[in-house]
Amino acid sequence: MDTRPIGVFDSGLGGLTAMRELARILPEEELIYFGDTGRVPYGGRSPETITRYARQDVAFLRSFDPKAIVIACGTVSTTALEVLRRECPVPIYGVVEPAVQAAAQCTRTGRVGLIGTKATIRSGAYERALSALRPGAQVEARACPLLVPLVENGRYQPGDPVVERVVAEYLQPIREAGVDTLVLGCTHYPLLKPVIASYMGEGVALVDVGAQCAHWVARSLEEQGLRARRDGEGPRRYFVSDATGDFPALASAFLGVDVAGAVEWVDITAY
Amino acid sequence: MDTRPIGVFDSGLGGLTAMRELARILPEEELIYFGDTGRVPYGGRSPETITRYARQDVAFLRSFDPKAIVIACGTVSTTALEVLRRECPVPIYGVVEPAVQAAAQCTRTGRVGLIGTKATIRSGAYERALSALRPGAQVEARACPLLVPLVENGRYQPGDPVVERVVAEYLQPIREAGVDTLVLGCTHYPLLKPVIASYMGEGVALVDVGAQCAHWVARSLEEQGLRARRDGEGPRRYFVSDATGDFPALASAFLGVDVAGAVEWVDITAY
Repeated sequence: MDTRPIGVFDSGLGGLTAMRELARILPEEELIYFGDTGRVPYGGRSPETITRYARQDVAFLRSFDPKAIVIACGTVSTTALEVLRRECPVPIYGVVEPAVQAAAQCTRTGRVGLIGTKATIRSGAYERALSALRPGAQVEARACPLLVPLVENGRYQPGDPVVERVVAEYLQPIREAGVDTLVLGCTHYPLLKPVIASYMGEGVALVDVGAQCAHWVARSLEEQGLRARRDGEGPRRYFVSDATGDFPALASAFLGVDVAGAVEWVDITAY
Repeated sequence: MDTRPIGVFDSGLGGLTAMRELARILPEEELIYFGDTGRVPYGGRSPETITRYARQDVAFLRSFDPKAIVIACGTVSTTALEVLRRECPVPIYGVVEPAVQAAAQCTRTGRVGLIGTKATIRSGAYERALSALRPGAQVEARACPLLVPLVENGRYQPGDPVVERVVAEYLQPIREAGVDTLVLGCTHYPLLKPVIASYMGEGVALVDVGAQCAHWVARSLEEQGLRARRDGEGPRRYFVSDATGDFPALASAFLGVDVAGAVEWVDITAY
């Protein structure tokens, strides 16, 4: 039993897909979310810059004395996880291991699709983890640099012609490769699930890396006896590095609860 | 005669459209460019964050003792120009005044279109300046948040179906309003000129705010006797805040000269 909070961070809104799942399966936990909205998107930046930003994100969350930190960001998980783990005594969870385990369980043919940011695809992290778990698996990977800007601008609805066209362009070679499982390797992408599912067709399982990570964290805390017990729901706090008014509205839509009063600004460069 | 450099900055690549024009019409000047590629894009961020970033950009350029600083960025020019001018003894040029003067000269009907980032359109700066210069002018303004991500990802070519569709979506109400002049209120947009010109048709003049600003700066230096005289071309240096390998290639394409060896990294948060 450990009532210290769980810290969760992402470059922006995407990590809320993991946050939502954490809040659902771990209602009693205190959850602190940081979205680096002042520097989003991460996925097109260099490994050096991504690591520098992620170090500050972790340092900020550590100021709350968390029992665990969740990198609810595909780009950071694939690019900086090892460095962050080496430098930080608090357990850090990334999205790659849980996602790859789910993909290995899902796939029958061993042909797995992967979409992510430029940094994620460049890292090769998902492919390495999948090969270790399921030797001989074939990964058809594709960088999708426009998807995060679309989602951050609130554009992910089925029927949006721009969204439909961009998704089709990115996924065409993956569909043609005949995968039976597609890893949505960035926590922004579950917002696009209806569009992606419709394009890929019914026979393809979609792996939501944020949700998989949330379940992994829950199991891990349970196994270590670190779950919090409380009467009722644990506190939830949301921090962003930009003061823009869009975040509370978009976040409320993503989470299905009104977070307007719970969003605070932080100067992330001070960490 | 003043051989001190001219500093130029933008959130990313867009300001190179002004830089190219400056280099063409002021070949003897020393030009120093800063692209904040580690924090691009600016246009969806809050005025507070844009101002904070712009202050650091100006502080960095001031370390070269420039005779002038050019804000080759529509978002900063419309959101933070007055604050920056108040705080900085070096003359600072923005893109709004030159663009609006050009638009006022171009338009016959007084119906002017304006496209820009969210921050630019929210500011109302172009509209205010145009009203002052040409009372009764009608401005049809539209925020185009996806254009900067497209350009920063190297996607601006005619025939690109995503680019064509996004441009058509944004410009449709402006074309329907029957404008005879369209201000491209962000220095990224001239890269999209062929696509935009083709959609708007021949009767509509396009105002390139970066190029207009370059001419304004040249005239101003000339009038004040501050032009540099040199044998041959002045030095050009390029700084970016991200170490990504994309910048030199894209910048070389934009500028039509190979800048690969001249691009340096700077930690902008130290300013």
